This record gives sequence, structure tokens and C-alpha cells, in this order.
Amino acid sequence: MTQNLPIIILHKPQLGENIGAVARAMMNFGLRELRIVAPRDGWPNPAAEAMSAGGLEIIQQAKLFDTLEEAIADVHFLYATTARSRDMIKPVTTPRLAVNDMQQRQIREELCGILFGPERSGLDNDAVTLADMIVEIPTAPEFPSLNIAHAALVMCYEYYQSTLDNTPHKSRPLTDEKMATKHEVIGMLEHLETALNDASFFRVPEKREGMLRNIRNIFTRAEMTQQEVRTFRGMIKSLHTKP
Amino acid sequence: MTQNLPIIILHKPQLGENIGAVARAMMNFGLRELRIVAPRDGWPNPAAEAMSAGGLEIIQQAKLFDTLEEAIADVHFLYATTARSRDMIKPVTTPRLAVNDMQQRQIREELCGILFGPERSGLDNDAVTLADMIVEIPTAPEFPSLNIAHAALVMCYEYYQSTLDNTPHKSRPLTDEKMATKHEVIGMLEHLETALNDASFFRVPEKREGMLRNIRNIFTRAEMTQQEVRTFRGMIKSLHTKP
Repeated sequence: MTQNLPIIILHKPQLGENIGAVARAMMNFGLRELRIVAPRDGWPNPAAEAMSAGGLEIIQQAKLFDTLEEAIADVHFLYATTARSRDMIKPVTTPRLAVNDMQQRQIREELCGILFGPERSGLDNDAVTLADMIVEIPTAPEFPSLNIAHAALVMCYEYYQSTLDNTPHKSRPLTDEKMATKHEVIGMLEHLETALNDASFFRVPEKREGMLRNIRNIFTRAEMTQQEVRTFRGMIKSLHTKP
Repeated sequence: MTQNLPIIILHKPQLGENIGAVARAMMNFGLRELRIVAPRDGWPNPAAEAMSAGGLEIIQQAKLFDTLEEAIADVHFLYATTARSRDMIKPVTTPRLAVNDMQQRQIREELCGILFGPERSGLDNDAVTLADMIVEIPTAPEFPSLNIAHAALVMCYEYYQSTLDNTPHKSRPLTDEKMATKHEVIGMLEHLETALNDASFFRVPEKREGMLRNIRNIFTRAEMTQQEVRTFRGMIKSLHTKP
């Protein structure tokens, strides 16, 4: 089952110490695969190795990516952990409910990713847009700013506790179809964007980015199957009038 | 209610960074009072202040003690967090069950303390002996060694989540009597020890410490009331034959 354990994805992390502390927390709670997108201080990072303690192997085997899109290409379901609430229409859940959801998906052989943003700013809107679900860690309202390694620890801890639950997790596949990977959905969205561009859909340039984000959000929420993506691409292709 | 929130006690902490990270985690999850026993690098500690972020106030108001006994004098119920299992006869619980227990005690106006040991060695047996309950954080068996700030974070996180529970916590006082404070119990045990010394109870000097620890454990498990402590001291006094 190791192959299918949730993976941790750090988007533009800043401090090596925090990356190391995340690896240690993963090791403590049975998670293994760490992916790192564009770390500020380069890679490998000695500070990350020093802080990782027993999680050194996780640091050494961490996968490095230039873009978040590449890092989540094979992921089926992406959870974004964030403190600030967003005005995006996405399901929001707690760590405890999120890990139960992960268990279900793991049984259905879907790969889950848990995404954390850079220390200073957190996840930007474009990154959150790629996520299927937002996880908000409930904190005291006076000081909600969690350290990134602490946020990762909470998720790893909750994940491991959920595996200890004695009641068997029942898998109820919503459909027999395989869910589409992020790579497939993003490819479809790019296809759509090209088609919309060529159709002069984006008349007001300043509104383009916001509109694209809304479109991406809609399709991410849809949790499309591979067959649906294929069908949709066929639709775009047939509608696409090249200039 | 702030007065009666559980307090965090760090016994002989080593790294200021960890003390600071504990304070930050406390602030994130609504806890306020930090007590520190014999910190290795003295106090105040600039590294602790730097790492505390929004929890700086907790660091600045932290109370310093020379001994664990003094630090827990006014505490009614002490939880010791530990990774290694002990051969002591004490109840062992999980963080999630421990915080539920804390909620009950908080309603009964008992002060709860959560105790963490030094980074390198964890809590020694003498410290664990003073605790009423052991809290073991379930971790992956391959690497159970949690960073002290991570262990504290788990407890603070669980505590805060338990306060969000919508179902009202019912208080069922076991008795109308006030539970004895640690100061009262330790005073009683010292009284007993003096009496046993004078009675030449400890014939084999090498066995003395182990026997005392067993005695302390018995009385800690008993969760005595103030009236019971008074009664017991009366018994010791009447039995005590000064040499």
C-alpha cells in the first residue's frame, strides 16, 4: 500500500529548517513521499537535512519540481492547507475530516496530495485554484498563523491516527470509472483556454486571469473521470475554430 | 475561564528554539501559561523569544522553577507525555482521550498540567512518578521519536479541537470534595518518607529510591482529596516515632 500513501507537497518553501521538520513529522507518522516546488534556497539544503532527524531518507529522496503543475501531475485529489479563508467556491474541511476522505480515496487507489504554501505568504490563489478541497486547521482567532512544519505535523498526525481507527473504512466508489489525474485535467483546461483565446472570449484583458481562475475552479470541483475528460476534450476540439 | 486552562510544563528543556516553538503552538491553540523547570541554557533565552512568533507574550510571562515539585505545586492533575512505555502502574491514554479528560477536570475547577521532558532523554522515572496519567502519542513504530515542540503541538492542537466540540461536556464530579493539589500530596509523601526513615524502614540503601518511587506512584494513582490528605497526615503523625 506504500505506493498509494498521501504525498506532501511544499510549494516554494523558504527555510530549510522547516523542510527538515516536515520530513521528521512525516517519518513520525508513517508518510514517505515529499515533493518540493521551487525551494527558495535551492536543493539539496543542508539545513533541511540537519533538522530532519530520522526523516533524512525522506529529504534525500524528495522530488524537486519547477512548477506546481508538474509536482501534482499524477495526483488525483489535492488538499490545500490554508489559514486565510478564500472567496473561491471550494469545499472547506478540517484536518480530521480530510484524513477520513483520504482513507476512502486511498482504497479507491486515488493518489492524494497535501499542499502547503511558502512560510511568509501562504498559498497564492493560483495554487489554491488547483486544489480540490481546502483544509483549514482550526486555531485560536487571536493568532491563527501556524508554522508550516506545524501545519504539516497536524496533517501527518491526523493521517496516522485515522489509520489506527479500528472500524474498517468502507470504500464506496461513486463510479467504476477512474478519476482523472491533475495532468489530464490541466491539459484539458489548457486546451479549453486556447480555444477560448482563439474565439476572442477574453475581450477585457484585465479580466482574463480572474475568469480563467473561475473556469479552472469549476472543473476542479467537478472531480471529473478520465472518460469525462476525454469526452470534454472532444467537445472542445469540435467547437474550436482556429483563427 | 482563562485562569483554569491547562498549563504546559517543560522539564529541563535544552534548546531555546524548542521552547519558543512550544510557545507559538500554545498561542495558536489558545493556551497561555508556560512553566519551565531548570532550562539548560538559562533564562531568559533569546532563541526562545525569536522562535515564539506571536507567542512572545507567553515566553515573557513564562514562570521559571528550580524543581519540578515546585512547578506543579498548585496542579491537581498531571499528564506526562512520553514515547517510551514504562513499567510503572499508571493509566496510559492517547492525546485525544487525555484532552477529553482535561475538559471534565476543567469544569470541576481542577488545574491540569501537561508535562514534557528534555529533548535528549525524555522524562526520567522520578518525573513520571509525579504524574497521574501517561499520554502516549501514537507514532509509526519505525521512528517514534517526536521533537518536543511537535509533541507539545499535538497536545495543544487536540486541546483546542476538544473545545470546539459542539456536544456539551458533562461534568460528573466523582465526589463533592476538592481534589488535593500536588503540593499537598508531595507534602504528605515527604511526611511519610520522614516517618519511614525514622522507623528504619529502608534497610537496604540501594533499594530506597525504587521503593520510594513505588510508594509515590501508589498515592498519585489514588487521586486523593484534600480531606483524605489531611486524614492521612494525621495517621502518619500518630504513627511517627521520632528517633
